Amino acid sequence: MIVYKIGGNIINNPATLHEALDFIAEGLTPSLLVHGGGRRADQVLSELGHAPRMIDGRRITDQTTLEIVTMVFAGSINKEIVAQLQSRGNNAIGLSGADGNAVLARKRPVGKVDYGYAGDVLAVNGALLDGLLRLGLRPVLCPITHDRRGQLLNTNADTIANEVAKALAAVGHEVSLQYCFELPGVLRDINDPASVITLLNPDSYANYREKGVISAGMIPKLDNAFAAINAGVREVVIGNLAALREGAGTRIRQH
Amino acid sequence: MIVYKIGGNIINNPATLHEALDFIAEGLTPSLLVHGGGRRADQVLSELGHAPRMIDGRRITDQTTLEIVTMVFAGSINKEIVAQLQSRGNNAIGLSGADGNAVLARKRPVGKVDYGYAGDVLAVNGALLDGLLRLGLRPVLCPITHDRRGQLLNTNADTIANEVAKALAAVGHEVSLQYCFELPGVLRDINDPASVITLLNPDSYANYREKGVISAGMIPKLDNAFAAINAGVREVVIGNLAALREGAGTRIRQH
Repeated sequence: MIVYKIGGNIINNPATLHEALDFIAEGLTPSLLVHGGGRRADQVLSELGHAPRMIDGRRITDQTTLEIVTMVFAGSINKEIVAQLQSRGNNAIGLSGADGNAVLARKRPVGKVDYGYAGDVLAVNGALLDGLLRLGLRPVLCPITHDRRGQLLNTNADTIANEVAKALAAVGHEVSLQYCFELPGVLRDINDPASVITLLNPDSYANYREKGVISAGMIPKLDNAFAAINAGVREVVIGNLAALREGAGTRIRQH
Repeated sequence: MIVYKIGGNIINNPATLHEALDFIAEGLTPSLLVHGGGRRADQVLSELGHAPRMIDGRRITDQTTLEIVTMVFAGSINKEIVAQLQSRGNNAIGLSGADGNAVLARKRPVGKVDYGYAGDVLAVNGALLDGLLRLGLRPVLCPITHDRRGQLLNTNADTIANEVAKALAAVGHEVSLQYCFELPGVLRDINDPASVITLLNPDSYANYREKGVISAGMIPKLDNAFAAINAGVREVVIGNLAALREGAGTRIRQH
């Protein structure tokens, strides 16, 4: 089965979102979709007079921000995606991490930075997701989790996709995790979109890193991808929509 | 099993909402919860500079209103209820009508009034709700539906509760439909809260109506309740939280 992750570059543009949903809906393999938040949360935050606050690219989630991102991620974006997949004949079901206890998290401990109501994933409910897939449903997860004590939390969508893929592998699925982002893949030369590295395994990754070929921004993403592979996910694919559609992009595998 | 409907009088007050969720979470009978919107949608509409528009107590749902009520009903209120039920050990799962095609509707035809994106229920997916209940989940439905052509629609929560109860009866459940509203039950004398009619069947209802005992505002609610009974729902109970908790209120039954 396939776990897709789509982020802001897809969600911010209605035409691109429709293209991505066309592609995902056409697939015959059972699949699950994790979506990020995109710029819509920042728009609504600003309209409600509550300017978004970020530190090092991470959102500071105070009480009001949490209420607003919950509305936007779990209400607006999630339901729009579900309704669009339904119109394409896919029996999509939207979930936050609180729904069916799909993704349990804990509030990030306050260190140098207080991220507020940011959630670090503790456990993904593989049995629930498996049960929904067996009912013929296609889960669509938004990046809101909970702590099972009544508190909702704002969580990184890439992390959720990674943990979901691992949890589904752990209950016996053969999982391909596909990250749809803005580039055609991991590049040898950040200025040359034709320089996609088509395959990475632990050896070639170590090799590229040693030579300083891979950009610093990609390293956390790739470390997470290898962690997923080591936890039983069959492959991770990274690319833009066109690349994923053609079966191109960068494939990360054990061998 | 029990289908609960809670409305604005519960949702507008955090303390009352917690009390209601305590009561619902304690129940050992499998149950399903339908919630309305309450005043929060009007608050967010006003904060976003989009004044709520109502005609005869019904909301006029233009495009912006639809986007906002979807955020509030499916995002804010639904996820708060789900997280609170999860904290009480209930495996709640939030649904709009688009999720799993739970509630299919069509845009209300334009007559004397154009209600905009208001949805009239066409079908409730009893097989889906039954499948979720069999997974040990407690569905929590918000009053947003879809037309399966990608359009979300704003739908009356009382109607959803009624149609959900009928659909569950149709797939073999013995259903008690419990409406939690502001009065202790259907009253003989609207000014006397002690004048609750404890039991209504088709004969006694016809009798009370003939004598003009039942207030005009209750008649559509009761007509819907009898429609549910005629469609196989075992009983409908109408009362406030205290009444439902004590097994009091007004019971509507075939005999």
